[in-house]
Amino acid sequence: MKKIINQPENVLDEMLNGLVYAYSNLLTRLDDSGVILNKEMKAGKVGLVSGGGSGHEPAHAGFVGQGMLDAAVCGPVFTSPTPDQIFEGIQKADQGAGVLLIIKNYSGDVMNFEMAKDLAEMEDIEVETIIVDDDIAVEDSTFTAGKRGVAGTVLVHKILGAAADKGASLSEIKALADAIVPNIKTLGVALSGATVPEVGHPGFELAEDELEFGVGIHGEPGYSRQKVAPSKELAKEIVGKLKGQFNWQAGDQYGVLVNGLGATPLMEQFVFMNDVKELLEADGLNVTFKKVGDYMTAIDMAGLSLSMIHIEEDSWLENLDHNVTTIAW
Amino acid sequence: MKKIINQPENVLDEMLNGLVYAYSNLLTRLDDSGVILNKEMKAGKVGLVSGGGSGHEPAHAGFVGQGMLDAAVCGPVFTSPTPDQIFEGIQKADQGAGVLLIIKNYSGDVMNFEMAKDLAEMEDIEVETIIVDDDIAVEDSTFTAGKRGVAGTVLVHKILGAAADKGASLSEIKALADAIVPNIKTLGVALSGATVPEVGHPGFELAEDELEFGVGIHGEPGYSRQKVAPSKELAKEIVGKLKGQFNWQAGDQYGVLVNGLGATPLMEQFVFMNDVKELLEADGLNVTFKKVGDYMTAIDMAGLSLSMIHIEEDSWLENLDHNVTTIAW
Repeated sequence: MKKIINQPENVLDEMLNGLVYAYSNLLTRLDDSGVILNKEMKAGKVGLVSGGGSGHEPAHAGFVGQGMLDAAVCGPVFTSPTPDQIFEGIQKADQGAGVLLIIKNYSGDVMNFEMAKDLAEMEDIEVETIIVDDDIAVEDSTFTAGKRGVAGTVLVHKILGAAADKGASLSEIKALADAIVPNIKTLGVALSGATVPEVGHPGFELAEDELEFGVGIHGEPGYSRQKVAPSKELAKEIVGKLKGQFNWQAGDQYGVLVNGLGATPLMEQFVFMNDVKELLEADGLNVTFKKVGDYMTAIDMAGLSLSMIHIEEDSWLENLDHNVTTIAW
Repeated sequence: MKKIINQPENVLDEMLNGLVYAYSNLLTRLDDSGVILNKEMKAGKVGLVSGGGSGHEPAHAGFVGQGMLDAAVCGPVFTSPTPDQIFEGIQKADQGAGVLLIIKNYSGDVMNFEMAKDLAEMEDIEVETIIVDDDIAVEDSTFTAGKRGVAGTVLVHKILGAAADKGASLSEIKALADAIVPNIKTLGVALSGATVPEVGHPGFELAEDELEFGVGIHGEPGYSRQKVAPSKELAKEIVGKLKGQFNWQAGDQYGVLVNGLGATPLMEQFVFMNDVKELLEADGLNVTFKKVGDYMTAIDMAGLSLSMIHIEEDSWLENLDHNVTTIAW
């Protein structure tokens, strides 16, 4: 393992210290916990809290700020934060209008965020939850009952964050969340495994001429391992699978997020985006939102994912374009 | 070579197409050239043009936009763009108040940008140049007479871009450039080589337990190859070398940029930033600007660099904090 770290067991603490030092204008860390807070909360606004295991940087702390999240609760690498840490995040994010928890669909996260919700409700904080399960690769993978939550979660942060910023109520935000999540789908491809610092070797190995479709952001198994292929072929496979789920028609409005998994340079992400473009244009889609970069990574995994959102309401696009002050959007 | 590309010789063209598709709200591509333009130029503003070989994404096209560059001229991977392409960029960037060229110190770039300047002056466009040579690692490396231009160049884009946005004249911007460049210094460490798509293998190899200090952003040799060490030790070496150059005193005002080289996750960059913090705090520096992420990469090289700027004037800090509309700042 070749990494720029110190003791592997200190990675979370040192990373969060480095983060809040670098962005002390925007963020604070609650004591020595994994709770990263927006420095300037807005009174009367619905609080948005997300989080989960670390190793997906810039998610989720990179999306804390005006117009997105109020708190990110950062667990150890690839491990859910505890209910009491999430509860602390909820307490700080509550500005009197209740809190929505945005949870990626992993059994540990779902359990711990739900327990934190119970703790908060005992303190009379109104809490709603939304579970994001955008990964169409597989059902019931490692750590997950049903589909996994991956990069599409960032689109959920953005759309709900804009709604909260504009003054929507908790019930309105919950209704919006329920409307958008079924319209967000993601599929990825991995060229290498990810190395958890405390483990010291990749979670899985791919040969020099192999790739795997549908690998999760913790290295969970995908659906097909095959020989490396040109970007055009990868785009065809991934767009084809997404099309099969969305069943889109010419003229439908979509948004597109190409997400690097951690070790894949922008050069490759842009080449891939160009191949995606040709397929979506051939189908006559009206693509009104696009973004390329590292948003939801798997530590140092090489590869990328494609997320698409069927934009059923123009207000969703307005929310995607709404101004934010965060590190990473 | 495992990369998400198609034919290696098409990488530049396809990457630029993917880029302008993804950010069609901000950028345009001039015909099928390597010239990427700010979509909304500001009449009467001094034009800022940068560029060089590709492979350093998001530099430089990611810094085109309101408040930074007006044009980025993108050559083939690790190869300078031609004088006529740079000339086209100058023509488009000229809004009647002249153009400043920001050039990283590589022999090919310096020659071609200077030739483009001559072409522009023949068309009565007033042109000034600034050569950035922030890398303190070595003198007279591969492709370079003197010191190399690396990640500190992005700070030059930012400070000059803000000055131009606020209405400074060409001579004022040239004077500001001459003042800031000697105050910007960078040193990096590589954990792996970079693979140019058309070459197909890394430009150099490091053993599993080796790293190299001072490697350039094209894989040019550094000054010391040694066994891997904890982040704290890397920070001590790099901060120590920068301190030797700046000769700083307690209370001096500095800005800090930790820059990932392409395949190094943010997790490691933030851990490193935390180690840098402790050293700078021990020396009593007044660090008023900080940033962490991938700004000037070397394709898929693992490693990072630390850039520091001695902020002699508060206006430089205001310029660093000035609002921008770009993909990557």
